[in-house]
Amino acid sequence: MQKHYLLTPGPTPLPPQVQEALGRPIIHHRTAEYRTLFKRVQQGLQAVVATSQPVVVFTSSGTGAMEGAVCNLLSPGDRALVILGGKFAERWRDVCAAYGAQVIPIPVAYGEAVDPEQVRQALKQHPDAKAVFSTLCETSTGVVNDLQTIASIVRATNAVLVVDAISGLLADPCQTEAWGIDALVSGSQKGLMLPPGLAFISLSPKAWALAEQAKNPRYYFDLRAYKKSLADDDTPYTSSVSLVVALDEALKLILAEGVEAFLARSALLANATRAAIHAMGLQLFAKRPSNGVTAVSAPDGVDTKKLVKQIQDRYQVTLAGGQGEMAGKVFRIAHMGYIGAFDLLVALACVELSLVELGASLSPGQGLKAFQSMIGRVPAQAQPASRASAPVGAGAR
Amino acid sequence: MQKHYLLTPGPTPLPPQVQEALGRPIIHHRTAEYRTLFKRVQQGLQAVVATSQPVVVFTSSGTGAMEGAVCNLLSPGDRALVILGGKFAERWRDVCAAYGAQVIPIPVAYGEAVDPEQVRQALKQHPDAKAVFSTLCETSTGVVNDLQTIASIVRATNAVLVVDAISGLLADPCQTEAWGIDALVSGSQKGLMLPPGLAFISLSPKAWALAEQAKNPRYYFDLRAYKKSLADDDTPYTSSVSLVVALDEALKLILAEGVEAFLARSALLANATRAAIHAMGLQLFAKRPSNGVTAVSAPDGVDTKKLVKQIQDRYQVTLAGGQGEMAGKVFRIAHMGYIGAFDLLVALACVELSLVELGASLSPGQGLKAFQSMIGRVPAQAQPASRASAPVGAGAR
Repeated sequence: MQKHYLLTPGPTPLPPQVQEALGRPIIHHRTAEYRTLFKRVQQGLQAVVATSQPVVVFTSSGTGAMEGAVCNLLSPGDRALVILGGKFAERWRDVCAAYGAQVIPIPVAYGEAVDPEQVRQALKQHPDAKAVFSTLCETSTGVVNDLQTIASIVRATNAVLVVDAISGLLADPCQTEAWGIDALVSGSQKGLMLPPGLAFISLSPKAWALAEQAKNPRYYFDLRAYKKSLADDDTPYTSSVSLVVALDEALKLILAEGVEAFLARSALLANATRAAIHAMGLQLFAKRPSNGVTAVSAPDGVDTKKLVKQIQDRYQVTLAGGQGEMAGKVFRIAHMGYIGAFDLLVALACVELSLVELGASLSPGQGLKAFQSMIGRVPAQAQPASRASAPVGAGAR
Repeated sequence: MQKHYLLTPGPTPLPPQVQEALGRPIIHHRTAEYRTLFKRVQQGLQAVVATSQPVVVFTSSGTGAMEGAVCNLLSPGDRALVILGGKFAERWRDVCAAYGAQVIPIPVAYGEAVDPEQVRQALKQHPDAKAVFSTLCETSTGVVNDLQTIASIVRATNAVLVVDAISGLLADPCQTEAWGIDALVSGSQKGLMLPPGLAFISLSPKAWALAEQAKNPRYYFDLRAYKKSLADDDTPYTSSVSLVVALDEALKLILAEGVEAFLARSALLANATRAAIHAMGLQLFAKRPSNGVTAVSAPDGVDTKKLVKQIQDRYQVTLAGGQGEMAGKVFRIAHMGYIGAFDLLVALACVELSLVELGASLSPGQGLKAFQSMIGRVPAQAQPASRASAPVGAGAR
């Protein structure tokens, strides 16, 4: 009977409108009804990605779209600069290596953002580089990179800039077209408030030119086939119909609130969460923190694996621990998508209570107070009147 | 207000239990709760695929798993025998070609099944062939190939037998392990009664040995990573959680009825549909018809595109036309998954009425009568008592 709260950086909780859409009877994908819906979804995705270019929808997890970027843009032997700094940056490195690219790593310490000057130097040193790979929000460390500056550096070269915005999209600002990002990759289970299972990729004209020539084998992720089908508001292979129908509902919610307002809410919730963490006497792990997820360093003597497990077992509140070598050293609280201010209040209360039980020295209530003092500034979520009480129970199952 | 009926060979209608599961709040995939569910799903899939080997679950459409078979089993330059005969057989050819295989086509006329002797001859002529690719049910023509005989021929050679059972699984008998099929590929939106978005692949030990050595680039579909994660009842990349939760419900329904009974029902519905088609004076397009889908040749002077459109527009009953060069020449009625006898009765009534309107000479009622006379033998679907009325409205939205 205990209410569940989900505050992980993917999957994120589903709005009731999305749940309802998922449970609808299936419709066939080669029909006028579906094409009309898919066209509307396409327009919504363009607004969210901030581009006038097509946004290709893959039925896959975000990693599939990362592979799609690599196999469509690179040929074997191509030089690829990969900005490191976390598990998902390292995935770019691994996918590039799997496709025979010559990977030039740009080293970044965990918890830090890349210095754009490093990118400029690496491009000078490797003027033949075909592409620069980066994360927007590095989900594993909670760092957001300065893509606006990085894009301004890359666009002056022949290289394309490829960005993993899987957790960053709709949380951290990202003016894909205006900044000059050449390939933006994202997924459904973060800011878009859907289950996992859809991934997105949008290319600039500079990147499309590469996709027409790249020599890597590809079929399911071959962007040329998707571009051709998009002319008919269609996909070359069967879409994940129920997820696309739910995406249509999610986009309606997002566009009704407005992308700017949606981002502003994430920013305020992130600020309030960071204020709470500081008020508890804890340290942020990220030097340049994302608005999508807050990574917190473990206080002395506390294993965050135990902390996350205790909060889960005792309160049914799901936070994220650290991944890979950060296991035990950080815990992470997401504030993206449908995660609301009061979900965060609940999570912070559990963090305070559990840290005290695990022996950390802190005075419970300080974090809550700091958080509360800031959420008056959080704009209310755009909800139909009859759903006004929904945000509080968002994570409940 | 008009009730919809969906009788296409994918997607197929969703049972209410599956719809309910799809609409549940999301759970996190790196939890004990999800692992327990995923382990149960794994066991259910092994029962459905009829194998003791792992069944890998991809978040993709069926085409993704076809690519997974090719990139994990073949290296560039490898010789691949591809049994043709329809659009999906041709997809095997295209994926193999995209991955640099030397494709040796085994030609088969549309509407016919391959003669297993052709496969024996081709393997004699190309003793270095690495793999033979076939469809179980060729969805575009309604033909089922004799995989039992083909497997007995291929297993005596060094080649592996790779089978697209996307629409055939749970409709046509397929004893994957007992027959000696080395790679079986399937998808979620057919016999498994789910939305599209999950694909499955299971390899024999002979095929796993190839997967360890194959030289094609791969990442998202790299089976080695999935095999490693399966040891922890997990997937390497985020699963399509809601679809896996719904798959768990679908498998419960299938296993409660029993795979044999499920197949027997498809066989009886297929027989009854074929009897109805003959009673209408029409011809089956498939010389060796599948139990999953019945393809019917257009009567003289009738364009099946018009027929399908008229049945859709007037009655909200969705059938499938012909694909590719068969457009206008055939129409197709599926009897797989949750499509019940009374859905088929409705569809056949619409076919009779619409054919008469389009000028075909037939006496309405003959098909219905023939169908009705056979469905007394169709076992009732296993449904909880409270859902007893569900099958009739299965296609409704």
